[in-house]
Amino acid sequence: MESSVVVCCLVILISIITPGSWGAKSRHFRWEVEYMHWSPDGMEGVVMGINGQFPGPTIRARAGDTIHVELTNKLHTEGAVIHWHGIRQLGTPWADGTASISQCAINPGETFVYRFKVDKAGTYFYHGHYGMQRSAGLYGSLIVDVREGDEEPFEYDDEFNILLSDWWHKGSHEQEVDLSSNPFRWIGEPQTLLINGRGQYNCSLAPQLSHSPASLQCKLRGSEQYAPQLLRVRPHKTYRLRIASSTALASLNLAIGNHKMTVVEADGNYVHPFAVENIDVYSGESYSVLFTTDQDPSNNYWISVSVRGREPKTPPALTILNYRPTPASKLPESPPPVAPAWNDYKYSVALSKKVLALKGGSTPKPPARPDRRIVLLNTQNFIDGYTKWAINNVSLVLPATPYLGSIRYGLTRAFDQKPPPDDFGREYEIMKPAGNQNSSYGNGVYRLRFNTTVDVVLQNANALKANVSEIHPWHLHGHDFWVLGYGEGKFAEEDEGRFNLENPPFKNTAVVFPYGWTAVRFVADNPGVWAFHCHIEPHLHMGMGVVFAEGVRRIKNIPGEALGCGLTGKLLMKKKNGTTGI
Amino acid sequence: MESSVVVCCLVILISIITPGSWGAKSRHFRWEVEYMHWSPDGMEGVVMGINGQFPGPTIRARAGDTIHVELTNKLHTEGAVIHWHGIRQLGTPWADGTASISQCAINPGETFVYRFKVDKAGTYFYHGHYGMQRSAGLYGSLIVDVREGDEEPFEYDDEFNILLSDWWHKGSHEQEVDLSSNPFRWIGEPQTLLINGRGQYNCSLAPQLSHSPASLQCKLRGSEQYAPQLLRVRPHKTYRLRIASSTALASLNLAIGNHKMTVVEADGNYVHPFAVENIDVYSGESYSVLFTTDQDPSNNYWISVSVRGREPKTPPALTILNYRPTPASKLPESPPPVAPAWNDYKYSVALSKKVLALKGGSTPKPPARPDRRIVLLNTQNFIDGYTKWAINNVSLVLPATPYLGSIRYGLTRAFDQKPPPDDFGREYEIMKPAGNQNSSYGNGVYRLRFNTTVDVVLQNANALKANVSEIHPWHLHGHDFWVLGYGEGKFAEEDEGRFNLENPPFKNTAVVFPYGWTAVRFVADNPGVWAFHCHIEPHLHMGMGVVFAEGVRRIKNIPGEALGCGLTGKLLMKKKNGTTGI
Repeated sequence: MESSVVVCCLVILISIITPGSWGAKSRHFRWEVEYMHWSPDGMEGVVMGINGQFPGPTIRARAGDTIHVELTNKLHTEGAVIHWHGIRQLGTPWADGTASISQCAINPGETFVYRFKVDKAGTYFYHGHYGMQRSAGLYGSLIVDVREGDEEPFEYDDEFNILLSDWWHKGSHEQEVDLSSNPFRWIGEPQTLLINGRGQYNCSLAPQLSHSPASLQCKLRGSEQYAPQLLRVRPHKTYRLRIASSTALASLNLAIGNHKMTVVEADGNYVHPFAVENIDVYSGESYSVLFTTDQDPSNNYWISVSVRGREPKTPPALTILNYRPTPASKLPESPPPVAPAWNDYKYSVALSKKVLALKGGSTPKPPARPDRRIVLLNTQNFIDGYTKWAINNVSLVLPATPYLGSIRYGLTRAFDQKPPPDDFGREYEIMKPAGNQNSSYGNGVYRLRFNTTVDVVLQNANALKANVSEIHPWHLHGHDFWVLGYGEGKFAEEDEGRFNLENPPFKNTAVVFPYGWTAVRFVADNPGVWAFHCHIEPHLHMGMGVVFAEGVRRIKNIPGEALGCGLTGKLLMKKKNGTTGI
Repeated sequence: MESSVVVCCLVILISIITPGSWGAKSRHFRWEVEYMHWSPDGMEGVVMGINGQFPGPTIRARAGDTIHVELTNKLHTEGAVIHWHGIRQLGTPWADGTASISQCAINPGETFVYRFKVDKAGTYFYHGHYGMQRSAGLYGSLIVDVREGDEEPFEYDDEFNILLSDWWHKGSHEQEVDLSSNPFRWIGEPQTLLINGRGQYNCSLAPQLSHSPASLQCKLRGSEQYAPQLLRVRPHKTYRLRIASSTALASLNLAIGNHKMTVVEADGNYVHPFAVENIDVYSGESYSVLFTTDQDPSNNYWISVSVRGREPKTPPALTILNYRPTPASKLPESPPPVAPAWNDYKYSVALSKKVLALKGGSTPKPPARPDRRIVLLNTQNFIDGYTKWAINNVSLVLPATPYLGSIRYGLTRAFDQKPPPDDFGREYEIMKPAGNQNSSYGNGVYRLRFNTTVDVVLQNANALKANVSEIHPWHLHGHDFWVLGYGEGKFAEEDEGRFNLENPPFKNTAVVFPYGWTAVRFVADNPGVWAFHCHIEPHLHMGMGVVFAEGVRRIKNIPGEALGCGLTGKLLMKKKNGTTGI
């Protein structure tokens, strides 16, 4: 029965595991999305939870498994979708969970089944991809282990999983109104950074942290929604720490006091191991690091997460690495590790450049040359007085009909058919505010020839204000890309000669640094329509994204449930009746 | 073009008038619904506006005209609908604007055309009917004048229109979460009462108003969003004051200092004129009163709107009757009129009983006896620990598929087919909290035989707490009903003998007083599915409503756009393809 009467039933996370082919399993989940009161940082607010949990339940599977999530929207008036960040959705482009792109938002009271294969081991997460529902707290972890019998190319005794996010006391609905207003209102820096949905606003775990505005030592029983999850370890062991960032805005840096880390995975791909004191994690990225508990076991140690790339007005998120059997209540003797200066971009660039594909690993080599190059200049602009981000002077607005349907069925009225430009005027001076700051809206799509190799050069520039250029972590749906290089200033033809074609890392998110460029390459071999956008939620809301369509005619069996809105909905109804009246 | 790119265009309220049959006109409006920053009472919040206005634009038409409203949803993630309160939607049940009942909510970016005839002159309004979007500010006035050449049965020189509402500083989304939580959180009394969307929170127009918590005299330029609209009059004239209440909660009383009023219209029907010092206006009701400017023209006079039926924690809303040429800035010499005590229900009952059909007017007489009687007991209950309202022990939950479609096409899985009971256990003690306070959810529908006469007896009772019984103004969609009588205590068979069959008023909203009953009669002659519910928005949100279905098989040509969700959406797509995959 489809009616809403079932709300009286117990909400259960069912996790039935049924055997599949080649030892792979089907894993079934039944989720309900709803708003609930929650105290992520000790101040009560409203979060978007799943089955009463915030963050949502962690999905754990093995490579090759098929995930089935029956998602029921229990919101009162809002649609909802969930994007499975880092999962390429091979053969299931309608399950990518991007409203207006891969599907219609699920209406209140309705259920949509996400069914997709997790083909590759790694650290992933999922999150809302409609309006600013990620900012509202709709996210959780998705961990894929290697296939039964397979082994990771590194060893560890146990593991932890950390999902990072940022939190505002102003609700995401009001943030949306602020960002869409004229005069523009920026959302400002987050009040709190969260580790697995937990942070502290009115108190601090580390009172000696002098630059923290929270002056009080937290008095916690541990059962509070905002009490930190401690990492309990035994001496002389090696641990894998999985880290993913679902932040709406903040670029972060994570460090473990007194412990070095070895980076071994990025965005679901193995990387050549390298040691770090601390690691930058941008929104949309995930990493695995190994660390060994080789320090004095009678002490505990801080794990600290700090803001990078924006002048930090948010205190670091903290939790404790607790050496058993030392009591968890014993505060670390050393102060929390101090992150590199927020604007030390050289440090960040150097760190990003260390991320390289694992030698002899499974990451394929990139094709030697691209079939097409798209250069995407990001600028901050005005449209009719509204403040927007634009890509090659087009600010993305998503249409009411999902592209997957409108392109598949040739509904040319569904969106602006004019293709957006492949480059910007090369005379554009990226170091200065634009001469003409006016832009225009567009919902055009880059149509990529199937199976061709595409280079995208992300070109950063000055924002509206002089001497401001921001970090933008760009995330590609449906693919991993090779990160071929980072450069300063304006990308030039000769920069191509310095691309790393030897061991570029395979990632789904790459950052473009202030006043710099970043070049990525991918093969358009996954039939579907895929978002490529800045993973900073307010930036995407302000238009900072593009859409790639490839091999769409090859797509068969799109579930009707994915397309029952906009012109695809009308098309389906019209075809039946000859008219839309029934 | 259907794409969202049109957001760049100027938002214009178009009002093209084209001639129709019999001198009637088609009036066209293009509206966009969106959230915006606004200061209804001097404290900035977010309201749901139409074309940048709050309240939404006033529609003015003549009886017999056809209204076309092209409503585009510019919200980011929320659906929207608009209900045309008091318009019976004869022949257009899909245009009633009730989500889950008459249509699917309009998705973000989509447009739905409301096309309906306003067949009867009167004072009406419109408002959101999805979640608590009425509380968010989605409302406006709809005024229907008599047909060209026709005359009202009373005379006046000019007129004013007042739409009353109540306002909370907590946003409606958070109110929804509060009301849906366990433990339950009540929304409390409104911060401010609004007259045409304007009220004063941190200051008062009348500092002498000692029981006002606002201690400061307002300093207003008049251009503020919260500055009152003054009623500018000339001496020795007669004015028609149209009053409608879209409050989410508050029952109100309106008075004009030193001026008597004569009530001439209620809910779009003429009533037998009667004089009052002040008038109760319940949520969902509308009235027209006449007053004559026969007072000292060198003074101004307060118009005051106060809370009835709940212990008032909200100061009265005030504006000024400004006798020209007396300066508007001259404060009235007499203090604002004082409303009857909030709990003087005798006064309220007496006033309600004065509302009778105009002798010799157009209001038809009721059929002599009903074909069916439905007694609806309202109780406050718990369901799985959640606090709800229930009718005959069923708390209304609306299904994902609109009833109009699911009943028309026999989709029995769309909702609980068990009909709700026509009466409650007659031994139920209405003066006490219920013995068993547990209830259950339901979305059942009362199916009424077409063209039969139905009596509904609204039976009030004690709420969860001892000695608490509240006012509930019940509103019926698709019909006017005759109000046959009000009684105290439990309705008994012999009460029928005292029904007023002579000159009962024709209304669409009738209040049931604490511990009392109210009997209404209507003819089920309008094919459609119609909500009948408490017009207090949080009460409806908590389940206080029922649904009447009548003559549904006679309905032809439901626009597909109204049904493209839930099982009707699936049905239409399935029929085309044989499967839901395409």
